[in-house]
Amino acid sequence: MAAAPVWSVDPRTGKQREQVAVEATAEEVDATVRAAHAARGSLADRTVRSAFLRAAADELEASKDHLVEAADAETALGPVRLTGELARTCYQLRAFADIVDEGAFLDVVINHPDDTATPPVPDLRRYKVPLGVVAVYSASNFPFAFSVAGGDTASALAAGCPVVVKAHPDHPGLSELVASVLRRAAAAHDIPEGVVGLVHGFEAGIELIKHPLVSAAGFTGSIRGGRALFDAAAARPVPIPFHGELGSLNPVVVTEAAATERAAEIGSGLAGSMTLGVGQFCVKPGLVLVPTGAAGDGLVKSLTDAVSDTDAGVLLDHRMRDNFIAGVAKRTELPDVDSPVTPGAGGEHTVSPGFLTVPADKLAQEGEYDLLLEECFGPVTVVARYEDDAEVKSVLSRLPGNLTATVQLSSEEAAGEGRGAEILQELTPLAGRVLVNGWPTGVAVAPAQHHGGPYPATTSTSTSVGGTAIERWLRPVAYQNAPEALLPPELKDDNPLGLPRRLDGRLER
Amino acid sequence: MAAAPVWSVDPRTGKQREQVAVEATAEEVDATVRAAHAARGSLADRTVRSAFLRAAADELEASKDHLVEAADAETALGPVRLTGELARTCYQLRAFADIVDEGAFLDVVINHPDDTATPPVPDLRRYKVPLGVVAVYSASNFPFAFSVAGGDTASALAAGCPVVVKAHPDHPGLSELVASVLRRAAAAHDIPEGVVGLVHGFEAGIELIKHPLVSAAGFTGSIRGGRALFDAAAARPVPIPFHGELGSLNPVVVTEAAATERAAEIGSGLAGSMTLGVGQFCVKPGLVLVPTGAAGDGLVKSLTDAVSDTDAGVLLDHRMRDNFIAGVAKRTELPDVDSPVTPGAGGEHTVSPGFLTVPADKLAQEGEYDLLLEECFGPVTVVARYEDDAEVKSVLSRLPGNLTATVQLSSEEAAGEGRGAEILQELTPLAGRVLVNGWPTGVAVAPAQHHGGPYPATTSTSTSVGGTAIERWLRPVAYQNAPEALLPPELKDDNPLGLPRRLDGRLER
Repeated sequence: MAAAPVWSVDPRTGKQREQVAVEATAEEVDATVRAAHAARGSLADRTVRSAFLRAAADELEASKDHLVEAADAETALGPVRLTGELARTCYQLRAFADIVDEGAFLDVVINHPDDTATPPVPDLRRYKVPLGVVAVYSASNFPFAFSVAGGDTASALAAGCPVVVKAHPDHPGLSELVASVLRRAAAAHDIPEGVVGLVHGFEAGIELIKHPLVSAAGFTGSIRGGRALFDAAAARPVPIPFHGELGSLNPVVVTEAAATERAAEIGSGLAGSMTLGVGQFCVKPGLVLVPTGAAGDGLVKSLTDAVSDTDAGVLLDHRMRDNFIAGVAKRTELPDVDSPVTPGAGGEHTVSPGFLTVPADKLAQEGEYDLLLEECFGPVTVVARYEDDAEVKSVLSRLPGNLTATVQLSSEEAAGEGRGAEILQELTPLAGRVLVNGWPTGVAVAPAQHHGGPYPATTSTSTSVGGTAIERWLRPVAYQNAPEALLPPELKDDNPLGLPRRLDGRLER
Repeated sequence: MAAAPVWSVDPRTGKQREQVAVEATAEEVDATVRAAHAARGSLADRTVRSAFLRAAADELEASKDHLVEAADAETALGPVRLTGELARTCYQLRAFADIVDEGAFLDVVINHPDDTATPPVPDLRRYKVPLGVVAVYSASNFPFAFSVAGGDTASALAAGCPVVVKAHPDHPGLSELVASVLRRAAAAHDIPEGVVGLVHGFEAGIELIKHPLVSAAGFTGSIRGGRALFDAAAARPVPIPFHGELGSLNPVVVTEAAATERAAEIGSGLAGSMTLGVGQFCVKPGLVLVPTGAAGDGLVKSLTDAVSDTDAGVLLDHRMRDNFIAGVAKRTELPDVDSPVTPGAGGEHTVSPGFLTVPADKLAQEGEYDLLLEECFGPVTVVARYEDDAEVKSVLSRLPGNLTATVQLSSEEAAGEGRGAEILQELTPLAGRVLVNGWPTGVAVAPAQHHGGPYPATTSTSTSVGGTAIERWLRPVAYQNAPEALLPPELKDDNPLGLPRRLDGRLER
């Protein structure tokens, strides 16, 4: 049987461009995982790891024009956005290199013997070691930042774990290119090229999650796909951690006072956020609670104007376009749902942005309107008009977990008057990131970032963006009464590597 | 239908002592979880939490005599061991109170806006918040330290999470007593008594893991029971973290040089560790690699003498006694397995300790001898005699994950000569705690402790003993551009609570 071809497709036309790879057989997945596993020793030295990550960033930058062109051909995201995303990806690789060098992520804790404890404490020294080969499932909507050289790969390599990436079928050609760049950087530091494996194909993705030498997985994508892989990871004879980012509605609450103070600004800001990247962000605001009355009407008017002025765009693939058009149609068919700007098919290969409105009380009980509480990927949002705070609370109580939750406050509320702090408290259980007077699109790469949230936002309590993403790929190990001569340098008394650590209860930095 | 009675049973006679409770119905489980959920706000203040934990320790100590007597009646572990275990349990509650007060576990990370980052970083402030109600599944073998007031409960309360404990059927009466002590301590700090729920019954345990308001679970017990609950936790519409400690073989490697130097000491030390608590520890050494030849023979002789001198003991219940006797019989039936001291039935209600020997090469390939690589709960261990280092390596390569792995080295090897460091490297992938020249029984409560390991030792990368056990019950949340007036005190610029934190990349302690 011939190997199944993998085609690069132009989303602007729906036409196949060229065959760029073949789907991996079970044997090929096995060989790729074994090669990654065999490469793990080459990542043991932290100085090699950080140098490799920086070299990868340098090499990606050196190939920038070629990579952006290849990415645009497969995603239609445009050179401006893709150039920015590549810069972010390189910044992220270097940020993880800095984290590797600092070494705080090793979580070194040392206890000297203590006979006053109950029971007495022997000499105990704990730090974190890499889990092993990490499977990375790429996203469609970030061909650089959440794909072959994205945050999962960067954080896994930083942790000392080789990766095998399951390429996203929406940019298989770019995936091959980026993998080759990473392997070039690896080779320059005497790391076997197998340290970054790449496989194509749906079945290959399933083989990958089941492979005995795969120790953990990272995933960014749909609830359906992510849950299927989560279930497979949990059902293994030896279950493995599955860190999936699956879906999010990203609710926004606009207070009456905020709408009164900044109706036009909030309306146009919302339009910008929900249509950014043709609405293809996991943090797109998908449900906006706006008060009834004149101030809220003004906000909706501003939103209407701004969205009407926004061009149609090309989605990442034609299946997404079909899903968007069908999803919007099902939602607009609901009674009492209006569409001041109707989203849907644009030209033959594009979609037009739009938004829906609904009375908030329709969302307060289980029923047909629950469809509006499900993510709809693409340039659409739902504006729910509420009468009072009780309606806001009852809608919020019905939401599943989210990556983000946002509140728009007036300047007085932001200064501490009124319900500001209370609303922040109400939003905190709903999401992993809570924003005030901003928009959730745009996820900064920073130590304080958290890109995760209650299920289905993520399948674990971890983040896939920011410095602490490295924690996903490590496990602690404690050495008891190991003689100084046998200890790894990270755990020696005199701290030859200068690591931050907790020594006999005291934090040393 | 009458509620199913829960009986307290005397393991020394197998006779029912008294009815102490009834099994919880689904409705009662629901009510218990809802009461715990309703109590979560009372744990929001960290000063209240730490005071509650200290009060719980004080109250347990005040009831010491009564509790030890009740525990001994249901477990037969004896007053000396139980008094020590209760002291450990109180120490643990106070250690978590200290951790709550210090606040490092909140993992505060603050980034002020930074336009030089790619993309620019807004004001981001991250810390950790409690997950919600935690289900705790008690162990049989630690009626205090891994039961109602044990490490899972202490760490969950410290994190700000109410708990619902599924009582172990081997000490239901003690479970009720300890729960009442905890509730007395809660009431003294104006915390609703529902903050510590308790349910009895197998079905109740299943209802508990499925309850929508349960956010996470801790478990200590068998592979079969733990895996069933792990599977149920993963199969929920909203999956939850399941931190289970399931089983461990706890391999020990004795080098030729160590056997030559300390045959008698190692043999008697091993006898003490494997028979401690009638072999009912999850860290009991269950497989010991001993060299062939005179030095190893001397070790086996010493082990034989010491085990022969060890009294028969009462196991925690009669089902365990039946399993132990049957498990030992199946193992001794294997060809080439000898039993220098035959373990098995002692008196009518007791079991005698013993150990088996086998040539190590029998364990190097898959086959009937794999039974010897499975944990056998009770006072038995397997001594595998090896010819050379290659045999040691091939046996180690066949082991599932472990809580501990131990090496006995000579003084020269401990000083850095020979294979000491190499063996430590080989043991690290196998376990969460690696010991040199000690025995794994005895798990200190300390910040550097790690009581966990690759599956099936634990179902996650976390620990159930030591300070970092608190991490299991928290999730991060980041606030973006939240005005100072609305921030929780933990995240304010001027650090009014004096928390350790990472501020703009710098670690502040």
